[in-house]
Amino acid sequence: MTEKSVYNYRKSAEIFERALKVIPSGIYGHQGPAEGCFVPVTAFPFFSERAKGAYFWDVDGNRFIDYMCAYGPNVLGYNDDEIDEAAAKQREKGDCITTPSRVMVDFAELLVDTVASADWAFFAKNGGDATTLAIMTARAHTHRKKIVFFKGYYHGVAPWTQKIDYPGVLPEDVANSLYVPWNDYEKLAETFAQNKGEIAAIISQPYWHGNFADNILPADGFWQKVRKLCVDSGTVLIIDDVRTGFRLDVAGSDHFFGFEADLICFCKALANGYNVSALCGKDFLKNTVSGLSYTGSYWLSAVPFAAGIACIEKMKRLDLPRLLDEKGKGLLHGLVETARRRGFDLHVSGMPALFYIRIADDDVNGSPSLMLHQRWIAEMVKRGVYVTNHHNHFLNYALNADDIKTTIQVADEAFAAL
Amino acid sequence: MTEKSVYNYRKSAEIFERALKVIPSGIYGHQGPAEGCFVPVTAFPFFSERAKGAYFWDVDGNRFIDYMCAYGPNVLGYNDDEIDEAAAKQREKGDCITTPSRVMVDFAELLVDTVASADWAFFAKNGGDATTLAIMTARAHTHRKKIVFFKGYYHGVAPWTQKIDYPGVLPEDVANSLYVPWNDYEKLAETFAQNKGEIAAIISQPYWHGNFADNILPADGFWQKVRKLCVDSGTVLIIDDVRTGFRLDVAGSDHFFGFEADLICFCKALANGYNVSALCGKDFLKNTVSGLSYTGSYWLSAVPFAAGIACIEKMKRLDLPRLLDEKGKGLLHGLVETARRRGFDLHVSGMPALFYIRIADDDVNGSPSLMLHQRWIAEMVKRGVYVTNHHNHFLNYALNADDIKTTIQVADEAFAAL
Repeated sequence: MTEKSVYNYRKSAEIFERALKVIPSGIYGHQGPAEGCFVPVTAFPFFSERAKGAYFWDVDGNRFIDYMCAYGPNVLGYNDDEIDEAAAKQREKGDCITTPSRVMVDFAELLVDTVASADWAFFAKNGGDATTLAIMTARAHTHRKKIVFFKGYYHGVAPWTQKIDYPGVLPEDVANSLYVPWNDYEKLAETFAQNKGEIAAIISQPYWHGNFADNILPADGFWQKVRKLCVDSGTVLIIDDVRTGFRLDVAGSDHFFGFEADLICFCKALANGYNVSALCGKDFLKNTVSGLSYTGSYWLSAVPFAAGIACIEKMKRLDLPRLLDEKGKGLLHGLVETARRRGFDLHVSGMPALFYIRIADDDVNGSPSLMLHQRWIAEMVKRGVYVTNHHNHFLNYALNADDIKTTIQVADEAFAAL
Repeated sequence: MTEKSVYNYRKSAEIFERALKVIPSGIYGHQGPAEGCFVPVTAFPFFSERAKGAYFWDVDGNRFIDYMCAYGPNVLGYNDDEIDEAAAKQREKGDCITTPSRVMVDFAELLVDTVASADWAFFAKNGGDATTLAIMTARAHTHRKKIVFFKGYYHGVAPWTQKIDYPGVLPEDVANSLYVPWNDYEKLAETFAQNKGEIAAIISQPYWHGNFADNILPADGFWQKVRKLCVDSGTVLIIDDVRTGFRLDVAGSDHFFGFEADLICFCKALANGYNVSALCGKDFLKNTVSGLSYTGSYWLSAVPFAAGIACIEKMKRLDLPRLLDEKGKGLLHGLVETARRRGFDLHVSGMPALFYIRIADDDVNGSPSLMLHQRWIAEMVKRGVYVTNHHNHFLNYALNADDIKTTIQVADEAFAAL
């Protein structure tokens, strides 16, 4: 591929000009220029036109092999026929109706059958609806206030989970938040000792995946010790599986790491992009959840339930986590080898299905500057491989061996372009 | 209709038994037995099978003329062909994709063109996402903490909007909440004087519609005085139009009552049931919103945007608020007359498109006991007219003159059965 074939984003830029007039910051969230702006924004397409399988096409007609998967929801491939058919069948009957549809019960039963730590399921729309319900449940059950977070966490955008210096957040919102370094059991135990009888919950992702940083798996025995500490202290253990859920283990990422959460939050991969999230949990918390005031306009919508049933059944049938792990390992092996041949040290972290990568040759005083890495990411995107410089990636079932081969070829060209 | 033709809910009850095992309280929200339980739950169907136009059918095959409209989202009729076609066309292209689709910008432009107080739009999933973003925006903009609510409000389920004695809610969550009686401008001005320079926002529905109580329209000049007070005090005026939005005025319910909000929250009728909400606002707050950390997994989903565009265009083309007002007036006239003929005093409040009704003959010491009313509601539902005893109702475009006639006939039978 020559420089001439590198993508341009003329129409994206035009639409973005319109967007800036009627939408705060034009685009919000990860895709907005405010985030990930270490990469020249000109390397990225702003608006998509369509998507299918492992690809999306932007408004300029450029095709991308997509390693972000809408930041998670695309787990089986965009517009998966089987999921879309199940959803369409339900849509013909009805979606958002005054009383819930029977598929809500079917979906809850399937989750209880599938997720090891689930005795029940409660459905909502955002991952943050599930994490907020989890926090409220823990506080209502324990009659305690304090919540332990692992530094570098992300559990949505509700005020209680934001940082004290973020705009719009009050000191009161985070007055009961305790922060502990990831994998540091000693510090955690110390924090529990210092706040004896006051900690309602620990909330954590199954492993650490902050932005702009190597991802970190749990240390050996870490979760088992945390689990025991929670039992001994009467503290509710909440796993935020919104990002990782179903990509590591269809029975839950807690199950993957050999323990059981009290409450576990799902979203993203739950229904292949249909809009639904879930909080699942243990029986001992069911009555507490029943007593909370918690609902939303679209939370009974039946179409996402039908899509979720089809999605989970297909993921189970495929043994999807194993397939994604294989795809990820093949891809990462190829990328690391290609980097090595071109004289670069590509550092890989996290699980293969949600890999984080970083060119490690741009460290300044032992810390990644990420400058060289960002340039490489930009060269990848401009050649049709959508990766990001700040976040873990996501694999989907539709990604095939040819896509991985193409990705490695593009990576080679992108290294050459540095 | 004889007693024999009164509905039974055998299958609903069976499915509810299953639901109780895997879902906290079986069904949550308004449809759950925990709420509205003043009515014998046996009068209501628990689960729907399908819906079309103004009707839904439950799992036992009973048909209902539906005056709850999924608590608002069904504004044009269930499975409206025009909206569903627009949504299906977008779904073929793609829904939840890594980068937003161009329809997001089209939708924002349409809202800005349609809603009088909107200079920009920000999309999310729940009404509560919009109200929470509004509160955070007001606090970030004013660098103040306090929020004024009108007693009997509902703005979602986030902890900041719940009550101090609700389970899972901390005193810290509501430490900056001030409560003023609805329509009481003197008390409001007094509250402002007592909290000079400290009130970030007033948040309010356009008129008062609490549960189990007659709805109350704004007093003459109330909103204009409130608007001026906010300007004079540097306080952000937030209108929660989640419930009322587009049923009173497609330009916003603030426009309907002759003032302009600084921030206005939409959900429900925004896309005829497709899952999307929006915060719209004035230019002077746009940069503040841009600086907040606020996003969600499905917030860029394109299908609800396409549905929203079609829904708003159709509502505008139809001049829907006028039609709903006419339907509501016809219905309410018939119900009140029928009640009178049967010797009952049916009290009507709120706007016709969102009417609240109550049999006023069961007052005890001057306050409604609602006991007779609840029995009447139960008789209505068992005869195929879905109304509730605790909440305002919602009209939709598909409701026709025959449905209204049938409703009035059923009402007559239900009065007779008391």
